[in-house]
Amino acid sequence: MTTVGILGGGQLARMLALSGAPLGLRFLVMDNVADACAGQFAPMVVGDYRDETTLAEFASRVDVATFDFENVPSESAQWLSERVQVFPNPRALATAQDRLAEKTLFQKLGIPVPPFAAIDTREQLDAAIAQIGTPCILKTRRLGYDGKGQFRIKTTADADAAWDALGAQASKVGLILEGFVHFERELSVVAVRGRDGEFRTWPLTENWHVDGVLSASLAPARVDSALAQVAYEHARKLGEALDYVGVFALELFCRDGELLANELAPRVHNSGHWTIEGSETSQFQNHLRAVLGLPLGDTRMVGLACMLNWIGEMPSATPVLAEPGGHWHDYGKLPRAGRKVGHATVRADSAQALATSLQRVGEGLGRQAQVDPVIAALARS
Amino acid sequence: MTTVGILGGGQLARMLALSGAPLGLRFLVMDNVADACAGQFAPMVVGDYRDETTLAEFASRVDVATFDFENVPSESAQWLSERVQVFPNPRALATAQDRLAEKTLFQKLGIPVPPFAAIDTREQLDAAIAQIGTPCILKTRRLGYDGKGQFRIKTTADADAAWDALGAQASKVGLILEGFVHFERELSVVAVRGRDGEFRTWPLTENWHVDGVLSASLAPARVDSALAQVAYEHARKLGEALDYVGVFALELFCRDGELLANELAPRVHNSGHWTIEGSETSQFQNHLRAVLGLPLGDTRMVGLACMLNWIGEMPSATPVLAEPGGHWHDYGKLPRAGRKVGHATVRADSAQALATSLQRVGEGLGRQAQVDPVIAALARS
Repeated sequence: MTTVGILGGGQLARMLALSGAPLGLRFLVMDNVADACAGQFAPMVVGDYRDETTLAEFASRVDVATFDFENVPSESAQWLSERVQVFPNPRALATAQDRLAEKTLFQKLGIPVPPFAAIDTREQLDAAIAQIGTPCILKTRRLGYDGKGQFRIKTTADADAAWDALGAQASKVGLILEGFVHFERELSVVAVRGRDGEFRTWPLTENWHVDGVLSASLAPARVDSALAQVAYEHARKLGEALDYVGVFALELFCRDGELLANELAPRVHNSGHWTIEGSETSQFQNHLRAVLGLPLGDTRMVGLACMLNWIGEMPSATPVLAEPGGHWHDYGKLPRAGRKVGHATVRADSAQALATSLQRVGEGLGRQAQVDPVIAALARS
Repeated sequence: MTTVGILGGGQLARMLALSGAPLGLRFLVMDNVADACAGQFAPMVVGDYRDETTLAEFASRVDVATFDFENVPSESAQWLSERVQVFPNPRALATAQDRLAEKTLFQKLGIPVPPFAAIDTREQLDAAIAQIGTPCILKTRRLGYDGKGQFRIKTTADADAAWDALGAQASKVGLILEGFVHFERELSVVAVRGRDGEFRTWPLTENWHVDGVLSASLAPARVDSALAQVAYEHARKLGEALDYVGVFALELFCRDGELLANELAPRVHNSGHWTIEGSETSQFQNHLRAVLGLPLGDTRMVGLACMLNWIGEMPSATPVLAEPGGHWHDYGKLPRAGRKVGHATVRADSAQALATSLQRVGEGLGRQAQVDPVIAALARS
């Protein structure tokens, strides 16, 4: 009997546990809050991620450990990795936690990135704005998550306000200035790499964000296969460079037919939730297969799939459940503004059928604005 | 938040809980043993099904109750149904628990059945053997399960031995003599009926048993669609007659192109496990949708699927996980002779691809005998 430990007890841990149960696995989830939603289906250890007593208990009860979110302190990941097998490895986690290290790695691997500069002082900020141009975005190097810890600089006149907002972070977590990309599309590659280096990706996914939070994903992305191959190759290089084991996502901007790397998520990813019903093997099960050294599952799609995120509170399930390819995912969380509380996946065998289904879902839920960009992308074909 | 109670904590309860989690449901499982495998992913109440204190605690903590196995005492189901909604209804459960009531209902609905007779005395046994002919099978009316409580009568000379084995049961649970059917195939319809009477079936499934226990299932069964329609119609009539809510399976024999009803399982069924990966909606999620009055999910298949049962102990997972359409289900049980401990489902887009996959799995596991009849059926086309 193998017990998999998961640091972080949110919906990703919950879906990992649900998808790993058929493999005969047991789970132990560690979170700093007792009502973390993964705890509804897996035993929990509650405590701060920096608390060595809790970490030691966690380590003593699991055979292998992995992550539900990337902002586990890297020292905790390192401490754990000296006591139990941890996948992905702490170096991969540390790289993905640091926007500067991440973008530096992209560059080193020949993966195009928007212009960026490390910022330690106000003077560096001014110099970097002059060099990169506006608009641009000042971000904390670490602990940024879903648009938090970011300040958009529209003109040079915004530099003061940006420094007021984030300057104090410069000496704590570091800052980075990034050129703003006027992209046509946001894409992501969800990929899995096994202990033996075997590498697979799911079909490229197109994503739409609202207020910096994922709103909808469509797979396969409506792009030509040459572009998709470039994206897969970027992901493969990253996986190898980091000796990555498990699932990760590479977020990309597409501008003028060129791909620019945005960020690396060292975990199962929101833009891969559609794989639960839309692929032969879900990202969740393949993450576990990779972590355990089992054969990776087929990442082939069956038809097309669209994932719609539910933020803040759950809408009515009925319009989705009434669709032939409609699947519901309620994470069992309490409603709260900005919180990811669930998602739906609509699967269909043709773009036309998917668009028709999404139209009905949008109307049924009064959420036309959420489905419209996906329907438009499907019409582009 | 809705909590679904499940009486019985075996693999069916476990798979119900795993498939119901995405609907935002919580579960409470009642079983008479504390290590029932559903307890690995759902909270449990442990106690005898006849114990009203335990039943009362269970009832007080759930919003609706259902079953993981049909041999819950009908008085317990009735007692519960007076305190909480119970689906399927106790009458349906009671009918399915009693082979005589079940077969009488089949007859009344015009569903062909093998010849049968109620047996209360030794004299009735002799008379029934003379009327039905040999071979025939003497069975207990109730609590028979997977070939237990049965005695096969090959010639009239076996009557004494049959009565020695089961005669004492005549006054307790009753006996029934059934004509033995020289069938060409065993088939099953897995069907779901909603609270509003909506009725759906998954494609007809062909089954192979070894020592009275399911060994393999293939869907869709390789039969002509007219025969499948007859089977679906039988199931529809049964669902309506019992005012059934939830998933049930109707097991059928096929002899000379005619269908004979064998038995009704008032629950999700082993021959429907392939629906987890092989259908848009699994039997487990549709059972919960039905029980909760939610829209029923699409029962369409995606390709073909074969389910292989693992009895006694789990084989190596690797040969199955290495197949493109290979899916693993380890129930988290301790090995024990005759026990259902897990299953695998192999899905493919064509009969040829499925046969090739099964051939590799059979060789990889040294279980050629288990896959051979399925491969032969696929070759029949």
